[in-house]
Amino acid sequence: MMLPMTSITELSEFDRALQIEQVADDCFTAELTSDWAIGNAINGGILMALSATAAARLVPEQPHPLTWSGVFVSPGEPGPITLRPTVLRKGRGISSVEVVARQAGAERFRALLSMADLANSAEPVRKTLLAPPIAPFEECTRGRVSLNNTGLLNRMDTRIDPATAGWAAGNPSGEGEIRAWMRLADGREPDPVSLLLFLDAMPPVAFDLGSHGWVPTVEFTGHVRAVPAPGALQSRIHTTLATGGLLNEDCEIWDSTGRLVAQSRQLCSARYRD
Amino acid sequence: MMLPMTSITELSEFDRALQIEQVADDCFTAELTSDWAIGNAINGGILMALSATAAARLVPEQPHPLTWSGVFVSPGEPGPITLRPTVLRKGRGISSVEVVARQAGAERFRALLSMADLANSAEPVRKTLLAPPIAPFEECTRGRVSLNNTGLLNRMDTRIDPATAGWAAGNPSGEGEIRAWMRLADGREPDPVSLLLFLDAMPPVAFDLGSHGWVPTVEFTGHVRAVPAPGALQSRIHTTLATGGLLNEDCEIWDSTGRLVAQSRQLCSARYRD
Repeated sequence: MMLPMTSITELSEFDRALQIEQVADDCFTAELTSDWAIGNAINGGILMALSATAAARLVPEQPHPLTWSGVFVSPGEPGPITLRPTVLRKGRGISSVEVVARQAGAERFRALLSMADLANSAEPVRKTLLAPPIAPFEECTRGRVSLNNTGLLNRMDTRIDPATAGWAAGNPSGEGEIRAWMRLADGREPDPVSLLLFLDAMPPVAFDLGSHGWVPTVEFTGHVRAVPAPGALQSRIHTTLATGGLLNEDCEIWDSTGRLVAQSRQLCSARYRD
Repeated sequence: MMLPMTSITELSEFDRALQIEQVADDCFTAELTSDWAIGNAINGGILMALSATAAARLVPEQPHPLTWSGVFVSPGEPGPITLRPTVLRKGRGISSVEVVARQAGAERFRALLSMADLANSAEPVRKTLLAPPIAPFEECTRGRVSLNNTGLLNRMDTRIDPATAGWAAGNPSGEGEIRAWMRLADGREPDPVSLLLFLDAMPPVAFDLGSHGWVPTVEFTGHVRAVPAPGALQSRIHTTLATGGLLNEDCEIWDSTGRLVAQSRQLCSARYRD
């Protein structure tokens, strides 16, 4: 159900973007706007968050996107989009849902989600990767990129550790790692669905290897493992294999208490000057 | 097309398992056997390899499974299985294919594959994770597990580094890491499709955290990034986040020349005694 406009304007930017309207048992519509565009496409993270929102309507006792795997078939554009979720398996703890998204007659992306209630699996912590060192929030810098459309960057407050920001000044380190603090610019606190957005909202790690321009995602898989505490998130992206025009970009996100709450790996295409 | 029986018996065990018969433009059948079972289900790796084989028939110029992401909807059993691939996007370099597998009236798994020709993206190597230290092949030990059905284990020649094999003697290290050499028992050399099998054929890393019994996969994503050289593969599995009854299992595989050729992450359920 769309909220009346008076309520919508009181919502955060992120919650407004996630407004979906149910038009059939298995069909939802939403409106994509250039607010969430980056370069010539709508950011994949907001599309992932939208699909998780649609999937959750079908399995309301499992509201969180434990895993999201998908392929981006064509770039999303501003305008209406249709999301068709299908429950593949309804489990007691975890359900599997496929979501197919179409826009203007073309498939945009297709994803397989595992839905769960994260409150049931966050404790005890038997093993965890700890957050790497990062400069204090105030000492970190806003990354700048040259793109046609930077709607997404205005929605995010991303502060990059100066130790990993050389690429923004034309001096990529070649290490293939960027660390940053992240939060939504309007102060909206993180939740499990927004972690899908954060997992795909860092500058491309390929930039730290000397790549420029558009870095399209071939495949993306993210795991959301806990409900994040309020406050700024700490994020790290890095690559473990960059060969030819392809590289994996791995992302980890820790919440303000230092808990690892989400991680992802995407395979990207990249172009290099050399 | 099924090969006549005289030819089949000359094939390796792995190639025999991957025999598929085309019964319609978008439909293939194969026969699952207990040779590839582990516990009460057919190993996910052989199912992934089968789906990649079916996908490749639709995009023959892109024969390799660059990425494989999927959910296992119900456990595979010995008997015929139907594989339905659909091309979502036909690209010049990379195509996206969905494969839905059904058996005995039930969906078994659903996967999204990116198909490519790996010869086009293996060079140059800009960044790579190096293989960790491992004991020489001759000093590594065959892992033993107590299960009803160990067909898979007889197809694989897996030699575990004694430094990470304590769990097999009842002394899990708690580190959540296992390193091993792997090859097919009948000497069949590795290729890109078989890397999908190897990515899912290690003993569960949960065993090194004190877990016992069945460790079902919630979601699996693997990347195959290069054609492996002949010879034994070096594999490492490890976890970066084990909380409650869930953990991620990350796997990397290096070929005999030390090249990182494949990596994967799966989210698993596990049970612990404590």
